[in-house]
Amino acid sequence: MLLTGTGRLAPAGPSPPWAIEVRDGRIAWIGSATGAPDSEERIELGSALVTPGLVDSHTHPVFAGDRSDEAAARLEGQPYTQGGILRTVRETRAADDETLERLVEGRLRAALAAGTTTVECKSGYGLSLDEELRHLRLLARVAERVPIRVVRTFLGAHAVPPEASSMADHARRVADEMIPAVAAERLADFVDVFADEGFFDLDATERIARAAGAAGLGVRLHAEQLARTGAAELGVRLGVASVDHLEQLDGPGVAALAGSSTVATLLPGPALVLGDRLPPARALLDAGATVALASDANAGTYGGFGTMPLVIGLGATLLGMTALEALTAATAGGGAALGRETLGTLRPGAPADLVAWDAEHEGVFALRLGAVRPSRTWVGGREVWAG
Amino acid sequence: MLLTGTGRLAPAGPSPPWAIEVRDGRIAWIGSATGAPDSEERIELGSALVTPGLVDSHTHPVFAGDRSDEAAARLEGQPYTQGGILRTVRETRAADDETLERLVEGRLRAALAAGTTTVECKSGYGLSLDEELRHLRLLARVAERVPIRVVRTFLGAHAVPPEASSMADHARRVADEMIPAVAAERLADFVDVFADEGFFDLDATERIARAAGAAGLGVRLHAEQLARTGAAELGVRLGVASVDHLEQLDGPGVAALAGSSTVATLLPGPALVLGDRLPPARALLDAGATVALASDANAGTYGGFGTMPLVIGLGATLLGMTALEALTAATAGGGAALGRETLGTLRPGAPADLVAWDAEHEGVFALRLGAVRPSRTWVGGREVWAG
Repeated sequence: MLLTGTGRLAPAGPSPPWAIEVRDGRIAWIGSATGAPDSEERIELGSALVTPGLVDSHTHPVFAGDRSDEAAARLEGQPYTQGGILRTVRETRAADDETLERLVEGRLRAALAAGTTTVECKSGYGLSLDEELRHLRLLARVAERVPIRVVRTFLGAHAVPPEASSMADHARRVADEMIPAVAAERLADFVDVFADEGFFDLDATERIARAAGAAGLGVRLHAEQLARTGAAELGVRLGVASVDHLEQLDGPGVAALAGSSTVATLLPGPALVLGDRLPPARALLDAGATVALASDANAGTYGGFGTMPLVIGLGATLLGMTALEALTAATAGGGAALGRETLGTLRPGAPADLVAWDAEHEGVFALRLGAVRPSRTWVGGREVWAG
Repeated sequence: MLLTGTGRLAPAGPSPPWAIEVRDGRIAWIGSATGAPDSEERIELGSALVTPGLVDSHTHPVFAGDRSDEAAARLEGQPYTQGGILRTVRETRAADDETLERLVEGRLRAALAAGTTTVECKSGYGLSLDEELRHLRLLARVAERVPIRVVRTFLGAHAVPPEASSMADHARRVADEMIPAVAAERLADFVDVFADEGFFDLDATERIARAAGAAGLGVRLHAEQLARTGAAELGVRLGVASVDHLEQLDGPGVAALAGSSTVATLLPGPALVLGDRLPPARALLDAGATVALASDANAGTYGGFGTMPLVIGLGATLLGMTALEALTAATAGGGAALGRETLGTLRPGAPADLVAWDAEHEGVFALRLGAVRPSRTWVGGREVWAG
C-alpha cells in the first residue's frame, strides 16, 4: 500500500506493485513497478504500508524541568494559565547549553524513531533576547547532529516574562528588538505568537506579525485555543502560513479559513490533556480548508515527543477524520503549514522522505493508536532509521 | 515518588526517601528509608516515580492476520459486527503453532517493555474445541519464555462459529464440552463470555458461567458494550470477578456494581477506536465501585499491545479520572479484577512486581499520554527489563 500524502495510488491509477525512483535525494518517478526506470540499487518493501515521512509542524522542544505534577493537579481541578509556562521559563533559563542540547536531541531522536522526518521547533521558553537567541542557536547545533529536517520558529511572544512591565511592552520588544536580531542571524524561518485570551491580544499580534513580515520571516499563530478571539480571521487577513489549535473556532471562523490559503493546524494531544473542547476537524475538512495535524509536544500541556502515530490515531478517532484524512493532514498538511508545497507528499520533485511501516494499511493508525512503528525511514533518500 | 497502588505514601505517612525490602520475590517491608532493615543488595532509584507493575486484566493476544483495513472502513461508516471476529477466526485457524507463538510472544514482550508485569490473555479466536485447546496450550508455552505473569482465560463464547447451528447450540457446546476439557487440562483460570446484543444472550451467559463455576474456574464477562442488556447485574448476581467494557451502563447498573464485589473494568482504547459512548468512570468511582483499566488489545477494535501507559493516560483524560485514580485502576484495580488481593499493590506480602519510570510524578501518564517508559522493571523481585 503506497500513500502519496495527497491520496492513495487508487485502483483507477497505476496498478500495484508500485515503485518509487529516488535521485539526488528527491523523488524522480513514481508509478507501477512494471514501468519503473532501471536503477542501480533496488529496495523491496513487500506489502508494507509506505507513506511520506511524517511532518510535525508544531512542537516546543527547548525546555528543562518536569511539570507532570501540574498535569495531575489540572485533572483535580486547577485551571491552565501563563503561570505554568513561566515556571518552565525559570527552569530553562537556569539550564546550561549542554543540558538543553541533550534534552532537545533526545526529543528529536524520539520523533525520528516514530516516523517524523520534518519537525517544526519553536523557541519561547526563554522570552528575553539573550535566552531566545541561545535557544535558537542551540536548536541549529542539535539539528546538525540528528538526521531530521528542522524548521525553526521564534516564539518570543509565548507569554509575558516577569521582567516586562506589560503585555504591550513585551510585544513591542519582540517586534522592535528581538525579531530584527533573530532575522539578522538567520536563526528562524517563522515567527509565532500565542494570540489568545490572557496571552497576546490582536493588536499586539498584528504588530509582531508585521515586524516578522518586514524582516522576511513567515508567520504562524496560536489561535482560538482558550477563547474565540478572532485570531483566526486576523491570520487569514495577514496571510499567515498556519493558525494552530482552533478548539474554540465557530462556523464563521471555519468559513474564513476554508476560503483562504492559511492552513488549519489541529493539535488533539493538548486538547485531550486539557479536557478542552475539540477543534472542528470535520467542519474544516467538509468546508475545504487545508488541515494539518501536529503534536504540540511541549513542557506543560502535552509531553508526547515521538507520538505522531498517536496524533494521527487521535485525529482519526477523537476528531472524526478518516484514517486517510488524518494521515494526509500529518504529511502533506504539515508540509503546507510549513509553506513547502511538496513536503509530505510522494510525487516527482518532492524530497525523498519515506517511511515503511510495520503494517499494511493506514487504518492501523486508528486501530493501534500509538502502537505503530516504522520499519525503515529515509530522509532525502538516505536511510536514517531501521526498527 | 512511591505509589503503592492503593494510594501514594502520603505526607501524613512515612517521610521520604522511601524504601522497599524484597525477600523471596515478595515485598517484605515498605516505609521510610531511615527505618529500613539491613539488606545484602541495595538499589538506588533517585527521584524516579516507582509504582507496582501494571496489570492488564483484559487482552486477546492469540490471533493472526491484520484488520487495519476494517478499522479504516469503520471510520468511513461501516458498523462493527461478529463478522470481523470470524474473519480473524479463519486466519487464526489457518496459522500454524510456530507462527502464532511468535505473534503472541511479540505481543507479551511489547507489554512487558511498557511496564506491564501481569497480563490476562484470552483465547477466543479458535471457537472449536481443538482450536481453543491449541490456543490455550500455546499460551502456556509462550508464558514460560517471557518473564511476565500470564493469567489465562477461556473465551469459547467470543462469537458463534460458522459450523454452529445457533447461538444456543454453541453455548451448549462451550458449557458441556469445552469447559470440562479446558478444566481437566488446567488450561485456564477464568471463563469469559461476550454477553452482548448480537453475541450471547443472558440465558446462554448464565449457562456458561454456571458450567465454569462447576468446573472450579472463575468467571468474567464482556458486558454492556454494544447495548444495555443487564449483563452487569447478571454478573453481580453470579458473583463474577469482573464485568468489562460498560460503555452503555446506566445509573442502576452503576449502583449494582458499587454494592458488589464485582470489579468494573473499563477499556478506553476500543471505546475511542469504535467511537462509542464512553463508560461512566466518574460515576463508578464516585459510587465506590472498584474500577480497573485494561487495554483490550485485540485483533479488530484496538490493536495496542504494550500501550498500558496510554490506557492510563486515556483514563485520566478521556474518562475523567485523576492520574492517581487511573494508575490505581491499572495496578490494584487490575489485580482485584483477576481475584488477586495483593497483586498490583506495594505492601508486605505482595509480589515484588515493580516499575521505576522515566518520570517523577504520576501526572506524567496524563501529560505524555503514551510517551512514558519504564527505566527498570522487576517481576517477583527479579529485574526483567531495563530501558
